[in-house]
Amino acid sequence: MNKRQFLASMVAWVAADTVRAQAPMWSPSQKWARLVIVGGAEDRVQDRIILRKFIEYAGGPLARIRLITAASGVPDAVASSYSAVFADLGAQDFAVLPLNSREEAMNPQLTSEIMKADGLFMSGGDQSRLMQTVWDTPVMEAMHKAFHFNHCCIGGTSAGAAVMSRHMIAQGEAVLRPRKDIVDTDVGLGFLPTAVVDQHFSERRRLPRLLSTLASRPDLLGVGIDEDTALVVERGRAIEVFGKGVVTLVDMGQAQTNARDVDEEAQMEMLGVQLHTLPAGHRYSAVLPAPKGWPAGLRRAIELLVKPGPVYL
Amino acid sequence: MNKRQFLASMVAWVAADTVRAQAPMWSPSQKWARLVIVGGAEDRVQDRIILRKFIEYAGGPLARIRLITAASGVPDAVASSYSAVFADLGAQDFAVLPLNSREEAMNPQLTSEIMKADGLFMSGGDQSRLMQTVWDTPVMEAMHKAFHFNHCCIGGTSAGAAVMSRHMIAQGEAVLRPRKDIVDTDVGLGFLPTAVVDQHFSERRRLPRLLSTLASRPDLLGVGIDEDTALVVERGRAIEVFGKGVVTLVDMGQAQTNARDVDEEAQMEMLGVQLHTLPAGHRYSAVLPAPKGWPAGLRRAIELLVKPGPVYL
Repeated sequence: MNKRQFLASMVAWVAADTVRAQAPMWSPSQKWARLVIVGGAEDRVQDRIILRKFIEYAGGPLARIRLITAASGVPDAVASSYSAVFADLGAQDFAVLPLNSREEAMNPQLTSEIMKADGLFMSGGDQSRLMQTVWDTPVMEAMHKAFHFNHCCIGGTSAGAAVMSRHMIAQGEAVLRPRKDIVDTDVGLGFLPTAVVDQHFSERRRLPRLLSTLASRPDLLGVGIDEDTALVVERGRAIEVFGKGVVTLVDMGQAQTNARDVDEEAQMEMLGVQLHTLPAGHRYSAVLPAPKGWPAGLRRAIELLVKPGPVYL
Repeated sequence: MNKRQFLASMVAWVAADTVRAQAPMWSPSQKWARLVIVGGAEDRVQDRIILRKFIEYAGGPLARIRLITAASGVPDAVASSYSAVFADLGAQDFAVLPLNSREEAMNPQLTSEIMKADGLFMSGGDQSRLMQTVWDTPVMEAMHKAFHFNHCCIGGTSAGAAVMSRHMIAQGEAVLRPRKDIVDTDVGLGFLPTAVVDQHFSERRRLPRLLSTLASRPDLLGVGIDEDTALVVERGRAIEVFGKGVVTLVDMGQAQTNARDVDEEAQMEMLGVQLHTLPAGHRYSAVLPAPKGWPAGLRRAIELLVKPGPVYL
């Protein structure tokens, strides 16, 4: 960019963060390193607010957007569905990456495609299938380079959202109350190093499951994302919420639990868990002075979310 | 009581509060003013831990225990069920109060029965039916005198639990997320002046409903009680939990919400809600120094719960 463009982007940068949490959303056109984490079942028929936002954050209609279907058991169907929607939304450079096996994840041509992408979107399916395909492959390394160095916008829905955190919920029953050891966790892509993401959150009543996960890892921030709702994480700067539902942050930073001392069948004691529900249209800065009235702990939670993870190389 | 008995009770009093939150429960035989608030569906067939506790706290097998069925649409069936259980548990002075209309709630003989009771147990049903029957009647006054002056143990399950608080949830749909104005509230018996009780809590996934209630009354402490679970409130001293599930305290004391500013259809922002899940077998004192590691806010929540309400005369 030239000097004038640079100056304009700086003005926009300051303007963006001057917007208070409750003010209307500001839509930047320039690219920041962003994660668009969708709780599943995003609207693909009507307003399609979330997919529009993803295109915008990838850089607009001309952005190179690539779809990853590796989580899905029916990748072809998923691919054709998203191809139609992205075309309909005016994305002119959209393609589906041939990435459904570990062999394909070694393909240098694929890594080069990823490195050139402005936006990568991961479909739903099974998060473990996705991780088994890409873990410790050149493709995963390319995704990290794309995000950290090229400011590629990384989106994912449902299983594609679960893989965003380093500590990933692989599976776990929908319990009524927090229970010890009912959640299987595994390693995710690691874009969020200090959080754990759960999706379909309010719809599948997953707060007890997320609390169960945090009981053994109280250092992590729990992030519950509703269906047709997106949490946007701007690396190092702010978070935003879009869509129909809410994003629920669950913070055990000041909490105390007896999880280590009780056996699996016993009910757990969890004291001092902090909960925040964030509705659509709100932006929460990690760098501006906290607005008056913000409860202690919220700022720290946002800082945990925007904290950049290590680059996997 | 004579001096020796008095001394023994003082020793027991000190011993009880010396028990730390995580220690085994101490079972006093003398009477304190207690509420036994049951989340519904208490076991009446197997261990019957909660009804046994109620008998114990009323004063044991010889205690005068009276049942109030005014919440129920089928009072006779409820009466015969509880009569059988209480007899089976060895309660030797159990009777059902004839109290299913406002006319009966004016009956001086009934108020005298209530004033003599050691334990009053309110069945489930519809909390509004119960309140319509007793509100502003001599029976309600007698219940307050019995609790506040005679240290009568007041128990209630489901609807009988909902009426314990002054601010009572009359009805409200099971929402997925906190929503504005979806809960109808009314005036309850007022034994808990600064709390609002919800029952069948984990089983019916009622946290969003309780949060919805608190959004407009953040000064109140939310109390969610699971099925077959009892919260025991010892006036001015401590709380205890018994049974199969947990008691969830929801504290908006440090929270911030935009409930006043959004319209009914919008999602609400709730920041800094504090949550405590308390399992069975735990006692939490409001008078002893807080155990090490207790999160800020828990002590205040317990103090809110044990705070005596005004006597309705």
